[in-house]
Amino acid sequence: MKNTAVKPLTTFLSWLKRRVPAIDWLPHYKRKHLPGDALAGVIVATLLIPQAMAYALLAGLPPQVGLYASLLPLAVYALLGSSRFLSVGPSALLSLLIVTQVAALAEPGSSRYLAFAMATALIVGVMQIAMGAAQVGVLTNFLSQPVLSGFTSAAACLIALSQVKHLLGVPLPPTDHLHELLGELARAVPQTRWPTVAISTASVLLLLAFQHLLPRVLARWKTFPAALAQSLSKSGPIVVVIVGTAIVAAFHLGARNGISIIGEIPSGLPRFALPALAVSEFLPLIPLAFTVSVIGFLENISVAKSLAAKRRQKVDSNQEFIALGAANIAAGVTGGYPVSGSFARSMVNFTAGANTGFASIITVAVVGVAALFLMPLFHHLPQAVLAAIIILAITGLMDFGMPRRLWRYNKADATALILTFLAVLAVGITKGILIGVASTIILHLWRTSRPHMAVVGRVPNTGHFRNVQRHEVQTLPHVLLLRIDESLYFANAKYIQDYVLCAAADRPELRHLVLICNAINFIDASALETLTDLRTRIQDAGIELYLTEVKGPVLDRLADTEFLEQLGSERVFLTTEDAYEKLASPHLQQ
Amino acid sequence: MKNTAVKPLTTFLSWLKRRVPAIDWLPHYKRKHLPGDALAGVIVATLLIPQAMAYALLAGLPPQVGLYASLLPLAVYALLGSSRFLSVGPSALLSLLIVTQVAALAEPGSSRYLAFAMATALIVGVMQIAMGAAQVGVLTNFLSQPVLSGFTSAAACLIALSQVKHLLGVPLPPTDHLHELLGELARAVPQTRWPTVAISTASVLLLLAFQHLLPRVLARWKTFPAALAQSLSKSGPIVVVIVGTAIVAAFHLGARNGISIIGEIPSGLPRFALPALAVSEFLPLIPLAFTVSVIGFLENISVAKSLAAKRRQKVDSNQEFIALGAANIAAGVTGGYPVSGSFARSMVNFTAGANTGFASIITVAVVGVAALFLMPLFHHLPQAVLAAIIILAITGLMDFGMPRRLWRYNKADATALILTFLAVLAVGITKGILIGVASTIILHLWRTSRPHMAVVGRVPNTGHFRNVQRHEVQTLPHVLLLRIDESLYFANAKYIQDYVLCAAADRPELRHLVLICNAINFIDASALETLTDLRTRIQDAGIELYLTEVKGPVLDRLADTEFLEQLGSERVFLTTEDAYEKLASPHLQQ
Repeated sequence: MKNTAVKPLTTFLSWLKRRVPAIDWLPHYKRKHLPGDALAGVIVATLLIPQAMAYALLAGLPPQVGLYASLLPLAVYALLGSSRFLSVGPSALLSLLIVTQVAALAEPGSSRYLAFAMATALIVGVMQIAMGAAQVGVLTNFLSQPVLSGFTSAAACLIALSQVKHLLGVPLPPTDHLHELLGELARAVPQTRWPTVAISTASVLLLLAFQHLLPRVLARWKTFPAALAQSLSKSGPIVVVIVGTAIVAAFHLGARNGISIIGEIPSGLPRFALPALAVSEFLPLIPLAFTVSVIGFLENISVAKSLAAKRRQKVDSNQEFIALGAANIAAGVTGGYPVSGSFARSMVNFTAGANTGFASIITVAVVGVAALFLMPLFHHLPQAVLAAIIILAITGLMDFGMPRRLWRYNKADATALILTFLAVLAVGITKGILIGVASTIILHLWRTSRPHMAVVGRVPNTGHFRNVQRHEVQTLPHVLLLRIDESLYFANAKYIQDYVLCAAADRPELRHLVLICNAINFIDASALETLTDLRTRIQDAGIELYLTEVKGPVLDRLADTEFLEQLGSERVFLTTEDAYEKLASPHLQQ
Repeated sequence: MKNTAVKPLTTFLSWLKRRVPAIDWLPHYKRKHLPGDALAGVIVATLLIPQAMAYALLAGLPPQVGLYASLLPLAVYALLGSSRFLSVGPSALLSLLIVTQVAALAEPGSSRYLAFAMATALIVGVMQIAMGAAQVGVLTNFLSQPVLSGFTSAAACLIALSQVKHLLGVPLPPTDHLHELLGELARAVPQTRWPTVAISTASVLLLLAFQHLLPRVLARWKTFPAALAQSLSKSGPIVVVIVGTAIVAAFHLGARNGISIIGEIPSGLPRFALPALAVSEFLPLIPLAFTVSVIGFLENISVAKSLAAKRRQKVDSNQEFIALGAANIAAGVTGGYPVSGSFARSMVNFTAGANTGFASIITVAVVGVAALFLMPLFHHLPQAVLAAIIILAITGLMDFGMPRRLWRYNKADATALILTFLAVLAVGITKGILIGVASTIILHLWRTSRPHMAVVGRVPNTGHFRNVQRHEVQTLPHVLLLRIDESLYFANAKYIQDYVLCAAADRPELRHLVLICNAINFIDASALETLTDLRTRIQDAGIELYLTEVKGPVLDRLADTEFLEQLGSERVFLTTEDAYEKLASPHLQQ
């Protein structure tokens, strides 16, 4: 009796632990994990604060929105996520998606614009939770490697170009169309503000020095701890923010030299509030939210998987959907905007020694303190500094070695990558990625629509049959053995039929055609129709059709069809050898 | 010397013969072919004249446009087509496409409307010739059997419903959206004109009698020639046209009972003229023209192929594109509208004894005489008679047995058929067929994204390996032999990876994982990335990966990759038996 009462409870608890992984690790939190978590949490925060403000500006939002998106969402993910190292928050890609789509609905920077961004986060959250519950993570497989790579590189180009205006100090409207961006840029260049360019150049150089020079210098200093060196090299953004702000503030460069500064940022924590929109105004956001849901999830899952693999831990992709969805809903109700896992910050978290999600809780505390008390310090922060931070952060996303590697391996995949890259640049992110997906699918169908076929013959004195062009084999003039290296379906059935009819037409003495089916995993209805047609046509020409080595599932399916009835089951052989022996016998040679 | 001068000429002549097949048969025309050709030509004309006028009215065009589309286009096809029996001219499907798309641009029946229809024929002609020259006939394979069947049945339903207004004598706007059509019909039914319904009913009954009763009656009359009987049973349309017109004219039913009649048709042959449109007005017709090009070609090639097969003749699909394209250009410059091969008329041509394309020239002559001298006779022809002819002509296109057959064979194919059928009815022809194509492709990817995989073991004392669930086989606890029955590509790579990782997790004693690759026809870049990843992960878990029976082309491609380098070519075995023997040896069992 006791057993049956306990069982549902245990089932529920194990379900709860799977859905809220923190229940598993938080009560048993070990003190020895604290130093690593605390250090990692603080370092991530110093990287997150400037990035969050920069990405919010990229998204056309006030800088504090980036911070708000780094508080509750990050905490929610820390409790629900199945990855222990993933750092969730604003992302450059999602920010670009927001600015190019939402700018059509409201003026960037306005409170309506913010409401649309919050609403997008809400819808994204609901969609991601629904996708997780429906376990459709498998659908993301349709975004192939080349499409993802082409998309990411192109988006990185667009983001970098969109920041050039801040580097030069010129105004430009947001767009994700390359030709518009370049046109506007060309018109704006003559108005370049040289003081801004000076700040930009100094920021880029300082960031590059931290990224590339500092690790080398510290490496020479043998006794310096490697982990600390790695963390210091990641602190470029906060240093350049502090130095840049201090210089601009000290010399009043904002007012005097016309350098764009962030201006006043309201201090305090975000309040809970739903976006101030009518329900009908949510509708036009649905396509954007769908794109953000999928792209955000893909960013998230790829980072989570690669970090989990390093520690032999498991990532549950449906739970990731749910955790990220909950984080997005948290962003939507606390004045934030869509979030996903960040590769750069998660790597910093991991290498700085984070052990559990508690590191992210520390990050949240640091960001919260900054939002409460440090905002006045950022008043004079130049936008050029944030632009420099964004550009250096996203250069890592561009992978120009991939197209070359792909081209060597497989031209079709390389073509899909290049097509996606160009399409995203030419027609924008959402349409571009759709074109990329369509091109992969079409190239895939194209490849399988012209399958490899081989005329085979018997390797003397064996039961093996090999390609006549590659091996010395025995053939019979009145028998053609044809191996089809592909499943038969609508896109290749006619091609195979034409090949067979041509092969038959070239051999006037042909009487028996044997199709070897060991690589045929299924035959769809169109192909079955074509086979039926083919059998009739070659029979009219005095040629009999035979099948050999038909796989079990394929034969099961053929069982009740008109095709097999007309063919006759006596013309289906288990092995090619059986067919060869039978058809080689003298009375069948005419 | 002589040889080299002659060679280019012979090459040119053989090219010309391929492009203008009439050069081959017209100069050697045999007198014995004349009776068959003449009889078939006249019989086709008697069917063509009422059909051409009816389809023109269905397309929203004056009836003589149907006749014009049956003169020069038919003659051009007779000279250029690679099929000897195909009868080209107006088609019900293309007429429906025209009326639903062009009605948005101009008032049906107006001269601007005719100009758009002519322009469509011109663009269709250019597109079809371009498609033939680019040899893209293979692309039409992407329209699978189920999609074509669902599309044709739905279009036939729409055409039949669109004619109901003529049967009832009520006015209705043209549409290819089922719900609009049904709504309008419901509103119009109370205005039904009973005299028109009487004519409709009589026409349908007379047509049915010719089609079904007459052959049976004549068959009882043993001495009656079968060929003549068959031809007579096809003469229903011209008889019902003559009888219907005579009755309406004799009793002045048109004016007195409000029966819609065709009215005055201008006598004479069409003049050469380009459509009176600005070049920019051609542009909105391009999507429609693309659909018409593909659908028209598919109608054409399927009829041509099935007739050619009956006489063991060949049809060149690229030449068919070119011939049909030329016919459409001829239609566009002589006041016609898009044409394609007609199944009904081509069958009549074939069974009435046509031997060469000369039969079509005779048809053209008869239609020409009708256009010149007989038009006044058709003045009192009731529209209800033409509607009855259309409805009985297209009922043959509906195939409601197909979905049932498909459902038994393959649920995915049946789903695609039903989806296409419903989509065409719900959202119109062009979008419906796109939805159909997309659904076939997605269902195909879905099928191949969850491939069949089998854990296999050795059939005792043989070199054969079979599914452990189906056969009594030997296995080793530390070796897993896994056969993947599908090529590896982006849509299934992750699924296979998850399957392998689960299989490995279930077997703690596992040390060696052997993938049997004999059904893998290619590995795309995404799948290669996943394989690389999989190898690293299972190696971290203490499991070695091996490949066996990798096909030549797949291994060639893997040769230079990081994956094979990391795997080590010593872990790729020629046969599964080799791998089994090696891994079964005692020192590897730990």
